[in-house]
Amino acid sequence: MKNIGVVGLGLIGGSLCKAIKAYTDYDVFGYDIDEAVVYSATEYGAIDAKLTKQSLAGCDLVISALYPAATVSYVKEHLDDFRPGCVILDVCGVKSVVCRGIREVIAGHELTFIGGHPMAGREFSGFAVSDKDLFRNASMILTPFSDTDKAVLNTVSQFVLSLGFERVIDTTPEFHDKMIAYTSQLPHVIASSYVKSPNCQYQLGFTGGSFEDMSRVAKLNEQMWTELFLDNRENLIAEITTMTENLCEIKEALRQSDADKLRSLLKKGRIIKESLSIKDR
Amino acid sequence: MKNIGVVGLGLIGGSLCKAIKAYTDYDVFGYDIDEAVVYSATEYGAIDAKLTKQSLAGCDLVISALYPAATVSYVKEHLDDFRPGCVILDVCGVKSVVCRGIREVIAGHELTFIGGHPMAGREFSGFAVSDKDLFRNASMILTPFSDTDKAVLNTVSQFVLSLGFERVIDTTPEFHDKMIAYTSQLPHVIASSYVKSPNCQYQLGFTGGSFEDMSRVAKLNEQMWTELFLDNRENLIAEITTMTENLCEIKEALRQSDADKLRSLLKKGRIIKESLSIKDR
Repeated sequence: MKNIGVVGLGLIGGSLCKAIKAYTDYDVFGYDIDEAVVYSATEYGAIDAKLTKQSLAGCDLVISALYPAATVSYVKEHLDDFRPGCVILDVCGVKSVVCRGIREVIAGHELTFIGGHPMAGREFSGFAVSDKDLFRNASMILTPFSDTDKAVLNTVSQFVLSLGFERVIDTTPEFHDKMIAYTSQLPHVIASSYVKSPNCQYQLGFTGGSFEDMSRVAKLNEQMWTELFLDNRENLIAEITTMTENLCEIKEALRQSDADKLRSLLKKGRIIKESLSIKDR
Repeated sequence: MKNIGVVGLGLIGGSLCKAIKAYTDYDVFGYDIDEAVVYSATEYGAIDAKLTKQSLAGCDLVISALYPAATVSYVKEHLDDFRPGCVILDVCGVKSVVCRGIREVIAGHELTFIGGHPMAGREFSGFAVSDKDLFRNASMILTPFSDTDKAVLNTVSQFVLSLGFERVIDTTPEFHDKMIAYTSQLPHVIASSYVKSPNCQYQLGFTGGSFEDMSRVAKLNEQMWTELFLDNRENLIAEITTMTENLCEIKEALRQSDADKLRSLLKKGRIIKESLSIKDR
């Protein structure tokens, strides 16, 4: 690989460009719908030049850092502009819909598509907050098709690790979506719900660390998350259902002033949390 | 004030002792039900000596860092051991039950009681994790009675600020309990419920910052939190009810694949969160 194209220069796309420039020798061509962002990324040195129809034809790897539907559209619209043998990697937050969509689109073309999802983010959006070290200690999830060339997959994995990722997880789009509904989407739903208590407006001076932790990601990009949630609605609905059931179990113990039951419910949660910390080490 | 007694040398009591020794000139006498902790606090220099019946009689200020019921019992049992004019400050996490209980106990005695709650903590317990700087940038909530001597309240406020607290909030026990149900107790209920999803066990590699934030305080002391929750059950039940209603509203929008509704619910949460950040600055 020599040339890399990055489409979408927001938090993730911008951080990828910066990491590629900082930690590899590749040339990076970047595109964003907002011309000012392309200018700013060039000035900053995050990209070597704008990604055009011409430079796209010279890219060995094209990374799409767009929303799910826009990712599929982009590949469809540029189908004849990619160089034969080009690898396309997308890094949006849902995988089943996107992998299914792009598989159809590229059928019969000499292109390899690999779905990906960097387990990194911030509660802020845009190129301005992108960071070459955003992926430091993070996982990159890859969801190749069962017939994806293993040599290509290995090249992409090595490339990803060179950007600072700690590990690559190889899984199916379906398992990714099921897990992400729990580990990422549900926390956003919880945070958004949490700040809607009528008492939230009086919180100043009454908070320690747990309020901040619980409410942090309520500051989200509702345009993006609405699309991500709807693309994964069955999994997310199941997680919200489990969550409300678990909340109601604690509420019921409180209603009955059942100290033993309450203690055992809290203990169960503590033991699960502690077992994770041990496994994570 | 010259001598301060601290009863209960756990995370909060231990941190108070260390802060008093580090940032003031008072002598500190400490007591813990676990004799080894008293020894360790003395060795560390967090206390000058053990708090005994004799040294208690010489204390101008006694801080109880015990659980709620134990706080009331302690004051009751030592009623004749306090020096006349002594100020008692308790720092447990619920205030209505404790303030009501102690008001009855000390009626007719020459003692001033002030309820307090430091807005600081960690997901670990015990003297070993206590820290002289635990209260740095934190609020201390005080819930004096309406007839509490203003000069005494002022002395306690100044003392508290000298330990590193950023500000003192003066409120009623009832308002404290209502707010704390939302800002602190509900996050613990949420974290405990969150980790009980069957998918939690597979989280390794699929998490970014939001999973960690959401699950952090699931590691709680179930003995203490069961008591705190039951002492504030009406307020906490109300908050859990609001929370589940807000979760169900999002779930319903997902069920109906209603993008506009979903976007508007997420936007509402974002705007609330952003307005807090502005107010907090």
